[in-house]
Amino acid sequence: MIPDIAFDALSTVLEGRVTRSKSDLDVHGRSETWFAPTPPDAVAYPETTQEVSAMMKVCYAHDIPVVAWGAGTSLEGQTLAIHGGLVVDFSRMNRVLQVNDADMDCRVQPGVTREQLNTDLRATGLMFPVDPGANASIGGMAMTRASGTTAVRYGTMRDNVIGLSVVLADGTIIETGSRARKSSAGYDLTALFVGSEGTLGLVTELSLRLYGQPEAISAAVCAFDDLDAAVNAVIATIQYGLPMARIEFLDVVSVQAVNAYSGANFPARPHLFVEFHGSQVSVADQVETFGDIVRDFGGSDFEWASKTEERNALWTMRHNAYYACLALKPGYKAVVTDICVPISKLAQAVEETAADIAASPLDGPILGHVGDGNFHAILLIEDANDADLGEAKRLAGRMAERALAMGGTITGEHGIGMGKKDLMQAEHGAAWTVMGALKSAMDPRNLMNPGKLVP
Amino acid sequence: MIPDIAFDALSTVLEGRVTRSKSDLDVHGRSETWFAPTPPDAVAYPETTQEVSAMMKVCYAHDIPVVAWGAGTSLEGQTLAIHGGLVVDFSRMNRVLQVNDADMDCRVQPGVTREQLNTDLRATGLMFPVDPGANASIGGMAMTRASGTTAVRYGTMRDNVIGLSVVLADGTIIETGSRARKSSAGYDLTALFVGSEGTLGLVTELSLRLYGQPEAISAAVCAFDDLDAAVNAVIATIQYGLPMARIEFLDVVSVQAVNAYSGANFPARPHLFVEFHGSQVSVADQVETFGDIVRDFGGSDFEWASKTEERNALWTMRHNAYYACLALKPGYKAVVTDICVPISKLAQAVEETAADIAASPLDGPILGHVGDGNFHAILLIEDANDADLGEAKRLAGRMAERALAMGGTITGEHGIGMGKKDLMQAEHGAAWTVMGALKSAMDPRNLMNPGKLVP
Repeated sequence: MIPDIAFDALSTVLEGRVTRSKSDLDVHGRSETWFAPTPPDAVAYPETTQEVSAMMKVCYAHDIPVVAWGAGTSLEGQTLAIHGGLVVDFSRMNRVLQVNDADMDCRVQPGVTREQLNTDLRATGLMFPVDPGANASIGGMAMTRASGTTAVRYGTMRDNVIGLSVVLADGTIIETGSRARKSSAGYDLTALFVGSEGTLGLVTELSLRLYGQPEAISAAVCAFDDLDAAVNAVIATIQYGLPMARIEFLDVVSVQAVNAYSGANFPARPHLFVEFHGSQVSVADQVETFGDIVRDFGGSDFEWASKTEERNALWTMRHNAYYACLALKPGYKAVVTDICVPISKLAQAVEETAADIAASPLDGPILGHVGDGNFHAILLIEDANDADLGEAKRLAGRMAERALAMGGTITGEHGIGMGKKDLMQAEHGAAWTVMGALKSAMDPRNLMNPGKLVP
Repeated sequence: MIPDIAFDALSTVLEGRVTRSKSDLDVHGRSETWFAPTPPDAVAYPETTQEVSAMMKVCYAHDIPVVAWGAGTSLEGQTLAIHGGLVVDFSRMNRVLQVNDADMDCRVQPGVTREQLNTDLRATGLMFPVDPGANASIGGMAMTRASGTTAVRYGTMRDNVIGLSVVLADGTIIETGSRARKSSAGYDLTALFVGSEGTLGLVTELSLRLYGQPEAISAAVCAFDDLDAAVNAVIATIQYGLPMARIEFLDVVSVQAVNAYSGANFPARPHLFVEFHGSQVSVADQVETFGDIVRDFGGSDFEWASKTEERNALWTMRHNAYYACLALKPGYKAVVTDICVPISKLAQAVEETAADIAASPLDGPILGHVGDGNFHAILLIEDANDADLGEAKRLAGRMAERALAMGGTITGEHGIGMGKKDLMQAEHGAAWTVMGALKSAMDPRNLMNPGKLVP
């Protein structure tokens, strides 16, 4: 609950941009996946770092929980106000503040979306490559340590956020990082905040690393006889050291879903979607080497897309795969789960997961960013069917156990939120207690996204 | 002071591998640079993580400060036991525990040196590229977030340490990270420990990312008319996106020092030392592009080294540059300082620093890993000459101020230790207080390398 006196104080510092309207609360109480809606007590729309600081001072004084909201596309319930309180919607903080062409970096507000940023950058010859599929906000991507299709080449948000402005629980504003490409000046606070899911503070500005738009890009699709051949082709490619920009796996069900949803006509076999970036010479060299590897593993039905429109169509299909899978069973929801394993274990992890799903009553297409050893199962469940939900959680739990047994992690890119908190002890042991101690040191009143991520 | 009862307890858990012999204390009381010797009260030589844990429990019970020691090559006094206590020498924990060829990662103990690791890896076709010049220990490199000549291509220790075993102040053993290439499972504790200079815990194992040894390597040396032309050639190269493996700058004095020390015969002009890694096709492509850039900036006296022995000779010269500079003035010591700035500011930063040094009575060769915007001044001072030391500190302080004014950092790779603690407030402001709060949460008795890095 937010007492009226606190609400009024918030309204004053935010010049009226805080609301308790039912529609606003409802919109900000939903998640992208299966979690039950939990509307907050109020929604704030700050416009500046100073406003966020003033707002946090009010929340700190009145013990009001605070949950950050970017584009609402997270998959593990990160944005749900499960202890009530204030959701802070950063959609009005959506400006690209600075682009430094010469240094290939930029400064943005957290509400900027990745598509908006890349549209802004187009004329500069630069790009921000991290691409989780959804048109997420940059702030949200930083907070879940997002990655996606291009991480195999350009890294994740861990690698591409170089500095932050953060408002702490008591309203203190701090700056982390610098515009230098590296530093040994003390603890890496930037890395501590990236992936913290709003539990340590509210990010109000981000400095990002940018990259030159490649001189040449080629994309391709190829089919394999079975899952094993496709995944082993990926492993061989990575071990060869080929600098792939994207290397994505879709199983048969995913391919069928994409065909149905996007009007494509891929053969009903496991596929790889790949992309190469570089100079003309280097891309030609990569394409030739990759072709050799694919042939070694019996890959076929090669289709190259070197025109921009063809490539865009291809990646739009890939990005819509989640919605394509949902559309397989109209009215169903999905438990979307992801794990990441060492590449040598990838084939085994995918096979065992596929077998597990095949033996269950649920449908669960498998696809993912396999160049990183990262893949997803989209477990389709009937809405409000507890048996389905229980079965999906059981399958997801077994995926996570499998990942840990293989030296991997319970989530490569979706994060913890509410969905995977129960698995944190199994992954981290005593280190999870350390995370809790760090949280307590930074946020002693437990106001920042309480109930998520830490014990 | 370490009371006898504590020393005896340490001796028991370490099976006698703890000593108060004067020669051991003296060796572990020295640093590589200008700091006054500060021998510890005892030196321990643990052999296992369990021993380190048992040892920390004794230290925790008796409030004994603990300082980690790898190869003793840090440059800012990181290993000096300025509050007395125990230095923990990891030289007996020097085993490569595991090499996973297929996943291109390995697990090592902290006392493994980078040369030892690469010798061990040679037959696997893999390499660990991070190269700070000195034959540092991997543990020490992680703790100072070291980088060096190859960071422009392969990143720093931040990018290449993927997991740790750490013993905390109270003896608790934690594991951070996993063998997966990415994770969104909670706070990035690995990144928090990397660069923490032993102030948060003792690292007893490290998982590292490895890379395939390149199919082709070419190195080259070229001279420029002036500093400005050399540095601007670097900026153009980086902005072009050429995937340089190394791009090093040496000013005239450094070149002369290298000539005298290593019997080389480079013209007395500013130089770049560069290296390219990749496939035969890609290296040839890179070399051609780089040649065009160098010509644009008036570079000359190109010398290519494609044979392994020639390349090794070249990089040995570069690695010995610090000793070569020291040898310019026999009996002198050096204040070795480094800063890192955005690449667009590099020419200005180097020029202003050179002018500052030229106007001072000290000699100070400038050289560095300019592809990252990172460079060093080796400020030569007469031993025990307080005026020289004061002047060197003044020059180093001005370099740091210059870096901050340009959006950079007070140290790109040497770290804070004792030498740069006074500058932390200027770089981090309130974020430095946060670092102190994290330190207190992890090490409430302030036993882990006390007096370094945090307030």
